Amino acid sequence: MRDLGCDIVIIGGGIAGLTAGLYTSRAGMDTLLLEGTNLGGQAIIAEAIENFPGFPDGISGIELITRLKEQAVKFGLKIEYEKVAKIVTEEGKSKSVKTNDKTINCYGIILAVGASPKRLGVEGEERFIGRGVSYCATCDGPMYKNKEVVVVGGGDAAIEEALFLDELCKKIYLVHRRDSLRATKVLQERLFKSPRIEFISSSIVKEIKGSNRIEEVVLENLKDHKVYILKTDGIFIFVGTEPNTDFLKGVVDLDTEGYIITNEEMEASVKGIYACGDARKKVFRQLVTAAGEAATAAYICTHYVLSLKGFIYK
Amino acid sequence: MRDLGCDIVIIGGGIAGLTAGLYTSRAGMDTLLLEGTNLGGQAIIAEAIENFPGFPDGISGIELITRLKEQAVKFGLKIEYEKVAKIVTEEGKSKSVKTNDKTINCYGIILAVGASPKRLGVEGEERFIGRGVSYCATCDGPMYKNKEVVVVGGGDAAIEEALFLDELCKKIYLVHRRDSLRATKVLQERLFKSPRIEFISSSIVKEIKGSNRIEEVVLENLKDHKVYILKTDGIFIFVGTEPNTDFLKGVVDLDTEGYIITNEEMEASVKGIYACGDARKKVFRQLVTAAGEAATAAYICTHYVLSLKGFIYK
Repeated sequence: MRDLGCDIVIIGGGIAGLTAGLYTSRAGMDTLLLEGTNLGGQAIIAEAIENFPGFPDGISGIELITRLKEQAVKFGLKIEYEKVAKIVTEEGKSKSVKTNDKTINCYGIILAVGASPKRLGVEGEERFIGRGVSYCATCDGPMYKNKEVVVVGGGDAAIEEALFLDELCKKIYLVHRRDSLRATKVLQERLFKSPRIEFISSSIVKEIKGSNRIEEVVLENLKDHKVYILKTDGIFIFVGTEPNTDFLKGVVDLDTEGYIITNEEMEASVKGIYACGDARKKVFRQLVTAAGEAATAAYICTHYVLSLKGFIYK
Repeated sequence: MRDLGCDIVIIGGGIAGLTAGLYTSRAGMDTLLLEGTNLGGQAIIAEAIENFPGFPDGISGIELITRLKEQAVKFGLKIEYEKVAKIVTEEGKSKSVKTNDKTINCYGIILAVGASPKRLGVEGEERFIGRGVSYCATCDGPMYKNKEVVVVGGGDAAIEEALFLDELCKKIYLVHRRDSLRATKVLQERLFKSPRIEFISSSIVKEIKGSNRIEEVVLENLKDHKVYILKTDGIFIFVGTEPNTDFLKGVVDLDTEGYIITNEEMEASVKGIYACGDARKKVFRQLVTAAGEAATAAYICTHYVLSLKGFIYK
């Protein structure tokens, strides 16, 4: 095991982690960002982001992340692709972040671990992932050109993804357990204009069936409890997200759903550990709210590190 | 007096107001933004913004605001240039925003009123504004090409503006009342590299003197209390900001410095009134934190308006 040191470790390379890294690096902090898979988090799913301030023609998630990475690295942010296994905090000055093959000692930790798509939890779901079950229309949609698909969910994510599929597929069934949608009005208007999208309200998915690939979805209408079968080539599931905080249990306080509890200064329950972005307990999860919180977390964390180093008194 | 109506009135057209307008308009809310002077707030002062996520080569404040305005207007935001004189809230559903010549009735109000540069409060300061006294190097700096100027302050704004002037002026005296600077390290490093910038520590401005224009500045060293005179062509003052909330006294709760008190959902002390950006009581004032808060304020305000209209139950 190697022993490395830096001022601040950021865990997670989505918009929150990269924005935090931009701010701490620019403030002169020696900062290492650890990302377990790919940079971008859930942002890379987005084909066109319309509401990130400063991009009137929209911007793809991949482009935004590419630009932000360039910006952060310019100020000295270091990025390594390793999954964090454990955080060890001790009374006093130093903390340790452990990956499979090294331990990184640091003064401050910023948790920007994000969230992942929730499973429906029905039979066939796990089995057909990658063979008809998808959690990302932008990623997998092009494989369903001129085919019939089912989209599950009623929030912004579900409708955005259904509209994306509308450009590609022959027919889209939008299945939602309630009788109306939660999504933003402008998205709903676009949805109901499409002749290819059919809204199946008050219904849930009971089972996903097929042989080698998915072939049909079993639905139940929650009002009359009738069960029926929809032949389909694919199912896209957007029923919310859950925070990637399993490894943080017992390290910092989480709420019952696993979201990290912080105060308004983004301080988690352990001194020197901060959280921002989708994994934080809060009311509204957007790219721009994640970025704003990341700037605050970076600022407070930087001041904490400087105070430990004796440069300023807090 | 005309009587107009809309869903949401946003007061202030800086990055917070425009981002809030982008979000409420995109959510289908009929939204009117009122701006008393020019769009952009304090952002338009910035020559190069290096830390707004997504712009690796930096972006000028004017360009960012122009792009954001285009983006918000695309989704239906209406903008009018009128100063708000008064807000009237009554028990029940409706609120009124009064300008000099009209009253606008609405369901929700988002306060994005921003902040303005603080005055030093010394003799000569008010008299020489526009004749040597400036609060914006980016705006007025080019008029001081090859001249000698004084910059007052020790935070990020002061150093950024001193560095901007460094490109133009022959000599810059940076006067700060403490013996060290508060500014971000990367900015300090750049400052101390310049042969044209001289740091005068532990000193305050006592008086600004001249006949038609500013001619000299009277300084006092706080350690030995010696008073001395600096000949100068201009003085740029960056000693903090104060919120533009005078008209809100008695309407919503303000802290002792006049900042608007909200909870984490951006709700001010009166139901249906929200605040975001520099005028809000908080720890870190940045473009990206203002934008993040604006998105949250817009989301919560939209839900409040929809609940009043009977579309959703909160």
